[in-house]
Amino acid sequence: MEQIVKDIAKIINATIFGNHCFKVKGVSSFDDAESQDITFAIDSKYLSDLQQTRAGVVIVPETFKIDQNNCKDIIVLKTRNPKASFFKLVSLFHPEKIQLPCIHNTSGIGYNVKFGKNPIVESNGFIGDNVKIGDNVHLMPGVYIGDDVFIGDNTLLKPNVTVMEKTRIGNNVIIHSGTVIGSDGFGFTQDAGTHEKINHIGYVCIGNNVEIGACNTIDRGTLGMTIIGNGVKTDNLVHIAHNVKIGDNTLIVAQVGIAGSTRIGNNVIIAGKAGITGHVTIGDNCIVGPFAGVYSDVPENQIVSGVPHMPHNLWRKVVRIITRLPEMRKALFSFEKRLKNLENK
Amino acid sequence: MEQIVKDIAKIINATIFGNHCFKVKGVSSFDDAESQDITFAIDSKYLSDLQQTRAGVVIVPETFKIDQNNCKDIIVLKTRNPKASFFKLVSLFHPEKIQLPCIHNTSGIGYNVKFGKNPIVESNGFIGDNVKIGDNVHLMPGVYIGDDVFIGDNTLLKPNVTVMEKTRIGNNVIIHSGTVIGSDGFGFTQDAGTHEKINHIGYVCIGNNVEIGACNTIDRGTLGMTIIGNGVKTDNLVHIAHNVKIGDNTLIVAQVGIAGSTRIGNNVIIAGKAGITGHVTIGDNCIVGPFAGVYSDVPENQIVSGVPHMPHNLWRKVVRIITRLPEMRKALFSFEKRLKNLENK
Amino acid sequence: MEQIVKDIAKIINATIFGNHCFKVKGVSSFDDAESQDITFAIDSKYLSDLQQTRAGVVIVPETFKIDQNNCKDIIVLKTRNPKASFFKLVSLFHPEKIQLPCIHNTSGIGYNVKFGKNPIVESNGFIGDNVKIGDNVHLMPGVYIGDDVFIGDNTLLKPNVTVMEKTRIGNNVIIHSGTVIGSDGFGFTQDAGTHEKINHIGYVCIGNNVEIGACNTIDRGTLGMTIIGNGVKTDNLVHIAHNVKIGDNTLIVAQVGIAGSTRIGNNVIIAGKAGITGHVTIGDNCIVGPFAGVYSDVPENQIVSGVPHMPHNLWRKVVRIITRLPEMRKALFSFEKRLKNLENK
Repeated sequence: MEQIVKDIAKIINATIFGNHCFKVKGVSSFDDAESQDITFAIDSKYLSDLQQTRAGVVIVPETFKIDQNNCKDIIVLKTRNPKASFFKLVSLFHPEKIQLPCIHNTSGIGYNVKFGKNPIVESNGFIGDNVKIGDNVHLMPGVYIGDDVFIGDNTLLKPNVTVMEKTRIGNNVIIHSGTVIGSDGFGFTQDAGTHEKINHIGYVCIGNNVEIGACNTIDRGTLGMTIIGNGVKTDNLVHIAHNVKIGDNTLIVAQVGIAGSTRIGNNVIIAGKAGITGHVTIGDNCIVGPFAGVYSDVPENQIVSGVPHMPHNLWRKVVRIITRLPEMRKALFSFEKRLKNLENK
Repeated sequence: MEQIVKDIAKIINATIFGNHCFKVKGVSSFDDAESQDITFAIDSKYLSDLQQTRAGVVIVPETFKIDQNNCKDIIVLKTRNPKASFFKLVSLFHPEKIQLPCIHNTSGIGYNVKFGKNPIVESNGFIGDNVKIGDNVHLMPGVYIGDDVFIGDNTLLKPNVTVMEKTRIGNNVIIHSGTVIGSDGFGFTQDAGTHEKINHIGYVCIGNNVEIGACNTIDRGTLGMTIIGNGVKTDNLVHIAHNVKIGDNTLIVAQVGIAGSTRIGNNVIIAGKAGITGHVTIGDNCIVGPFAGVYSDVPENQIVSGVPHMPHNLWRKVVRIITRLPEMRKALFSFEKRLKNLENK
Repeated sequence: MEQIVKDIAKIINATIFGNHCFKVKGVSSFDDAESQDITFAIDSKYLSDLQQTRAGVVIVPETFKIDQNNCKDIIVLKTRNPKASFFKLVSLFHPEKIQLPCIHNTSGIGYNVKFGKNPIVESNGFIGDNVKIGDNVHLMPGVYIGDDVFIGDNTLLKPNVTVMEKTRIGNNVIIHSGTVIGSDGFGFTQDAGTHEKINHIGYVCIGNNVEIGACNTIDRGTLGMTIIGNGVKTDNLVHIAHNVKIGDNTLIVAQVGIAGSTRIGNNVIIAGKAGITGHVTIGDNCIVGPFAGVYSDVPENQIVSGVPHMPHNLWRKVVRIITRLPEMRKALFSFEKRLKNLENK
């Protein structure tokens, strides 16, 4: 595949500085690029000297100031959002494999299953009864779909995903391998020291444009719903318990755990390995730091860190002091002596 | 489905206050209930004003005092254990789907496999050689059962569960999707800087009435057994290493990790994201707090929290002080000055 | 199976103290052994009194001093590496089941798939197009192999493993059940408050002699590679993000998470539940403690612990003081009073 700079600039709406007719043969990272690749630069350490890359063409922000020194042999394309522009080109140079619609004969299909246009159901899958599947849905090998599930248009389930009964999944959703949607919540009734199983009759409801990482576990509601809002993205090995509600466009990084009935607002970022206790509310636009343990409500627009969580600025001070605790303790011992000396005078 | 209050009261052994002939059409949570639903209340915030729910019928504890104000239009049922009573009704209103015994022809069955009565083996599964399966066992699609496995009566394995060779599973067990039982432990011999694989010949032994969450990993014993006691319940993404022994009726919440050869007593609760090091013993009836890191033995009946773990009451004091470290450090600086002033007098 | 001590000593290159003709019937741990078992002892608590085991034969280090008291009725074998010697015997007494080469007819095989000698592809698997598979490769039931994957000689993939397109796996690799290799990284472009999916075109490259635990998630590189070096071993539920590079013979314990583009050196040990942030470098031979949170580069040969990480020796002091914070705070209050008294004199 080959594209000339002029055509690329049209596709990503860029201004060209340099040879309009240069042939681009591939996309690559700033560090790994070859001479006929296109790449992008947004960090100052890259922008300060574009000559650090071997790439022939670099996409930079509109605000970048070109001079003789910083890019003498490099063709520069300026766009509003260089990263988004670059990944548009990645898709152009690496188009996804086209698969023909097909329901593989090793996949069991239940009663009253309604498919939309162009279904792809690969091998060794299972679809239960009363399932409704939208247009252009793609179920990769080994996917399990329980009874009464609804899947919206253009949704892709990767190999070995498990979707338990009654789950509702929106349009343009991607679910990565090994993930389990709609497992029973961790709830029991106690009687005479034993824990009795309760029947979980709720379900999981996933919005549109959601991406769920690999090996996630999202439990069904005990009675009502567990809700994943529109545009939510989760990383790998994330646990979301029964009846949790996650607002739109929230990001949840790897190995986060969210306990039962907690509500997370819109546009929240929960960093890796953070844990959030049950029955609390995290407001819109909050950021929860990595490894944080959130034990109570967090009002909107807050940044919190630490176990238990505290304002991020306080946590930054606290962690600096924690490594000085041994010297603080020594100071206390010396003060004790000096006080005694003074008191005995 | 419809049940009259009189019949419901009989099923859950309740005393009725209100209309015996009221028709109940469904079960629901206190907050989401409609006028013909039955719900339950045990928290004081609900019991203080039953009018907060729209439900027609509420199950309450025997000790609840009824008066004109707290439940004027509501039918009240008193039982010994309202939550257990309610979930008995949930099962009544939402009976589980009945599946006919069947061994699906896409599931491979090894040599010398013995099935009990009414087996259900769904599609795309695999059962190895010399496997013994009890009565009413249900293997959902994509389940793998290795050689020499034993599975007790009434046990249910959800889709895409992996059970490696020699595992023993008791009666009335549920294992959720994506879980791996009997993987090799993380043990190697070191020789000249490399780590040599050792042959793990032990196995996992799971008792009766156990429920294992989704995407758990329970390793086989290196030589002997990894033991999960009767009535144990684990949440999602739990890791249990080789040769761990877990006592009866212990609860293990999501994302907990337990390292090799550790022993956990009976009736222990290990809260979410806690980690327990190898070769230690946690006594009966202990509670390990969320995010706790347990590095040594914990005697029975203790509550511990923190990293490393400490008595929970101490930890509560410690975490309150941690946020005050910046002011403590400031105090130290001022004391230094004031001491110098006094010393120079 | 039965072996006489003389033959065993030859196999593990041991010196015999005791009956050369004793018949050994099995291998077992020190605590569980029966009278005709062989076991090993390396810890001083075992070596101090070998009579604590019921085993007939015990393998001990070459440096062990034999006298009448410490091993009167026990046959002793001395070797350079008792643990390695013992597990050599474990493999002898418990040989692995031999399976005949076979490609099961329920596994779908794509176009242009090249198998080496003696392939075993068990049931309900899937192999995509343009896949190259080495000699003696064994794919257990339910394994998914995407397009353009390369798998080296003698590699074993356990049931329900998912290997996404373009992954490269070396020789003598074992991947445990439920693990996902080559899932998309957690990377998006932001535009007007939403997170746009980017096309991940990189891949995962796994070296030789690697063992990956159960339910791991190893993401593909966004553009380039995610690299797992030769001899690396990971425990269960480990997360390795896009473009991470892990050096040779590094050990990664359960539930560790490593964020994007981080580089881990050779011979590193990362203990359970530790988290390492993105874009940092951990030098060769480092040890990262359990539960540690590493936020910045760690030079080679360091031992670090804590959140955020600090030198392990400092952390040991800090955690001892943390439990004394309440008494330190009390001391501060009393100093305040005593200072006031002195100042008012």
